[in-house]
Amino acid sequence: MATRRIERTQESRRVLVTAAAELFAEKGYRQTSFVDIADKAGISRGSIPWHFGNKLGLLEAVVDDQLQAVLAGLPPRQGELPGDSLDQVVDFIRLPAARLFITLLAEAVEVGSPIREHYARLHAMLRQAVRARIPAESLPPGVACEAFTVLLVGAVIGVHAQWRVAPEAVDLEAVRATIRALLPAAPGRDDREREV
Amino acid sequence: MATRRIERTQESRRVLVTAAAELFAEKGYRQTSFVDIADKAGISRGSIPWHFGNKLGLLEAVVDDQLQAVLAGLPPRQGELPGDSLDQVVDFIRLPAARLFITLLAEAVEVGSPIREHYARLHAMLRQAVRARIPAESLPPGVACEAFTVLLVGAVIGVHAQWRVAPEAVDLEAVRATIRALLPAAPGRDDREREV
Repeated sequence: MATRRIERTQESRRVLVTAAAELFAEKGYRQTSFVDIADKAGISRGSIPWHFGNKLGLLEAVVDDQLQAVLAGLPPRQGELPGDSLDQVVDFIRLPAARLFITLLAEAVEVGSPIREHYARLHAMLRQAVRARIPAESLPPGVACEAFTVLLVGAVIGVHAQWRVAPEAVDLEAVRATIRALLPAAPGRDDREREV
Repeated sequence: MATRRIERTQESRRVLVTAAAELFAEKGYRQTSFVDIADKAGISRGSIPWHFGNKLGLLEAVVDDQLQAVLAGLPPRQGELPGDSLDQVVDFIRLPAARLFITLLAEAVEVGSPIREHYARLHAMLRQAVRARIPAESLPPGVACEAFTVLLVGAVIGVHAQWRVAPEAVDLEAVRATIRALLPAAPGRDDREREV
């Protein structure tokens, strides 16, 4: 009995998060009401505060959920950039979650936005995930890991933006090749026996 | 008399473009009405179609205007990247126009968005302006100018996005130094006598 109740609870939470993610991507955070979400999810409106406290709590759950999906597509923390891991980072550009992230970004940069700090956390977690995969010694001399991460995450965001509005104008394979060419095999990459 | 009328016409056009730019940045394209713009500009609603045809014509004028402001901040077409010109491209990250561009981007990626092609033109013009300042022979071997431009414009867009939501988490000077370190003086940069 108890197990089945937990399953129902987890299932209704999951359905609400999915419905909210779709509505936030489509209409934005502010324009989406609990009624919209409950209608789409087919679950009573009252269950939203029960699960998430308030609307920001729901946003946090949505962002975490989408971020987990993004991170699941990343290679394990093998500390192997510039090679294959970098390719997979570039593949973020094709992410379906990106539409949600773009819509929320527009609201996050508004003056006094309630969602700004939640959005900042999204970027911070993306940077952390990428940084964990870039051992400092694999980067060319003079390139700091922190700033390189900002640049790489930024490039993915901004190349995605260009590709979304004009896919025919952006050759993703050529962009990938360019990143590889700009990051030639750096000293220390074949010297990975030692633990960092 | 005729001169003064032209001045009044140009002035009212300018005031309408400025008001529309602020409202589009604040509320988005779709949510902004001619009445909002006329009220803010203090000019009759009927003068908007007279100047711009329709709302998309007004958007085009706004984007062109902001883009001209952006390009005015770029160095002249001296064909000198990676050095100082690159620094100035990175300075785009601090652009005030960027909020307008982020808000419009969120609408441009919507399914069936009427503004997508106008937005694509904005990216295309940014790429064109940057590309004109990067002579192909100044790039490292294996780096294609077209893809490099997409990557650089993308990095500026995406670093800006991160900086806007969390300025304390993004060290713009370190990002600039990283771009410089990734683009070491390439062959051909001191070989600029020949015309390309």
